[in-house]
Amino acid sequence: MTTNTSTQIQLVARPVGWPTHDDFRSVTVELPELAPGEVRVANEFISVDPYMRGRMNDVRSYTPPYALGETMTGGAIGRVVESTSDAHSVGDVVLHQEGWRDVSQGAASGYRVVPELPGVPLSTYLGMLGLTGFTAYLGLLEIAKMKEGEIVFISGAAGAVGTAAGQIARLKGASRVIGSAGTPAKVALLTEKYGYDAAFNYKDAPVRKQLKAAAPDGIDVYFDNVGGDHLEAALSSFNDGGRAALCGAIQDYNATERVAGPSNMSNIVTRGLTLQGFTVGNHFQHYRAFTEEMTGWFRDGKIVFDETVVEGIDNAVEAFFGLMRGENTGKMVVRVGSAA
Amino acid sequence: MTTNTSTQIQLVARPVGWPTHDDFRSVTVELPELAPGEVRVANEFISVDPYMRGRMNDVRSYTPPYALGETMTGGAIGRVVESTSDAHSVGDVVLHQEGWRDVSQGAASGYRVVPELPGVPLSTYLGMLGLTGFTAYLGLLEIAKMKEGEIVFISGAAGAVGTAAGQIARLKGASRVIGSAGTPAKVALLTEKYGYDAAFNYKDAPVRKQLKAAAPDGIDVYFDNVGGDHLEAALSSFNDGGRAALCGAIQDYNATERVAGPSNMSNIVTRGLTLQGFTVGNHFQHYRAFTEEMTGWFRDGKIVFDETVVEGIDNAVEAFFGLMRGENTGKMVVRVGSAA
Repeated sequence: MTTNTSTQIQLVARPVGWPTHDDFRSVTVELPELAPGEVRVANEFISVDPYMRGRMNDVRSYTPPYALGETMTGGAIGRVVESTSDAHSVGDVVLHQEGWRDVSQGAASGYRVVPELPGVPLSTYLGMLGLTGFTAYLGLLEIAKMKEGEIVFISGAAGAVGTAAGQIARLKGASRVIGSAGTPAKVALLTEKYGYDAAFNYKDAPVRKQLKAAAPDGIDVYFDNVGGDHLEAALSSFNDGGRAALCGAIQDYNATERVAGPSNMSNIVTRGLTLQGFTVGNHFQHYRAFTEEMTGWFRDGKIVFDETVVEGIDNAVEAFFGLMRGENTGKMVVRVGSAA
Repeated sequence: MTTNTSTQIQLVARPVGWPTHDDFRSVTVELPELAPGEVRVANEFISVDPYMRGRMNDVRSYTPPYALGETMTGGAIGRVVESTSDAHSVGDVVLHQEGWRDVSQGAASGYRVVPELPGVPLSTYLGMLGLTGFTAYLGLLEIAKMKEGEIVFISGAAGAVGTAAGQIARLKGASRVIGSAGTPAKVALLTEKYGYDAAFNYKDAPVRKQLKAAAPDGIDVYFDNVGGDHLEAALSSFNDGGRAALCGAIQDYNATERVAGPSNMSNIVTRGLTLQGFTVGNHFQHYRAFTEEMTGWFRDGKIVFDETVVEGIDNAVEAFFGLMRGENTGKMVVRVGSAA
């Protein structure tokens, strides 16, 4: 593999509803010589994440929209193949935000050197040990302020953030952890591998009903990756003083018509509930605490994880579509090259 | 007026939708002799409040539902006419929760002696100086955490809580205060008397549109007394990091069908918003700070207020209906007697 060129994925049209291949294009560009203080990185894995669907729309948000006709960005991990920076050596593993391409290049300050942990694949830095794990940690502990002994419900529980959140809830002493997912295999995985006390398939029956059955004593904390009927069900099952961390609303992302909100919003008043939306960008003050705690759990063998790996930069867009359709278990990543 | 009997309002059926007179009855009971440590109080004013509609339903909430066939409770203020308590003398003005009747009687510990402030009517203890003012203070400053320089939107702004909240926002340095109400007279009052920078009649045009026009730079804080389309409008106008204190949803109280929630819930995630419902019961640790600050504002002539006074215990139910229909400006109270 040459690293003088970079194959990159660009957004060329803003999707209306479900994105299609016509909304993207792949370009291969010649890379210029490195300027002083830069690095060139052969990526090994790039990340595809639900939040990226939001960046494809031209709407105001904490994260700015992707520009049309430009290469998209996102999490990626790779090895330095060329460096004019004193802080980066050839062979260093670096984590960065210049994803959606096989070779990245730019100011060294944007590329953070991370240690290689024995037995831990590099892709983990995009998942459990990276922003995905941080999202789960932040939402559960800082946003929803989960306390020991509480009952926790997590939607999209077999996804990257969900599998992290369920394990963190358990490790932090939740008394009961309940998850929802969209296939029987995922539901089985939740209780058999990820330590959930109860799990259900949201396609089997109304979520509200299934949650009531799985949480006879109500819920105290809700980690929302889904929105829609799941949020409504949580509002219905919440105990007084319950807190919801709203992380995503994948049910709404590709909707072209307005989605009616929960019909039981008045429970927020009568039960004194708190709903807080968040994106990680505004909360990096907690990142160090996350890294220390999560690395410790990894070292002690207390964290398990799944990955869904799609091969090749040419399949990156298809990987993103698969993520939207819920085809992944755990973190979805694209393997874009090999440093070998 | 004799104080050996007490005329009391009881709930006899749970209203479905809008309550009717058939849901209530008036009874006159003989009062027993005082036991040791008790007081008998001739009430001057009793309070009718929107939250009472919620207590007429048999649903789980922070505040328990009213029991059928029993006298309802609520805020009231009156004078001690008989006392077997060392802490209470005949003639003392007392604030208590045994309202919905003209004469109250019980353990002295439930009756708090309050000072008579010159020029301040006793009914004020049910409004600006009482739970109504506290609700506004708590919601704005502790729940929504309003900071100096922020833009504040208040719905139901000409109501008891709304007129308090607008003035507190101003006194605490909000850069812009916007209110909504349901009649031209109320809208005029908001800007002319209560210091609002902008106000609109929610019946004139969609709230979302009117709020956008009144808040071209968006809003940072929303104090919600209404729910429904007002909350949806706030979600649409919120700046990043906005906070909503949800105090009531009068639009939903008498609905017999499920009310669809806001269609733009996903803004909660993308803009990092916080929605928190509250009832005062769980936050009395802030009551002293409120009383001190509000009494000071009163003393300095910095607070104005309106009252809608209905005469007679026999009209208490009708007063409550008027409140539900929005016929009050400021606090709605029922004058039930005179200590003269």
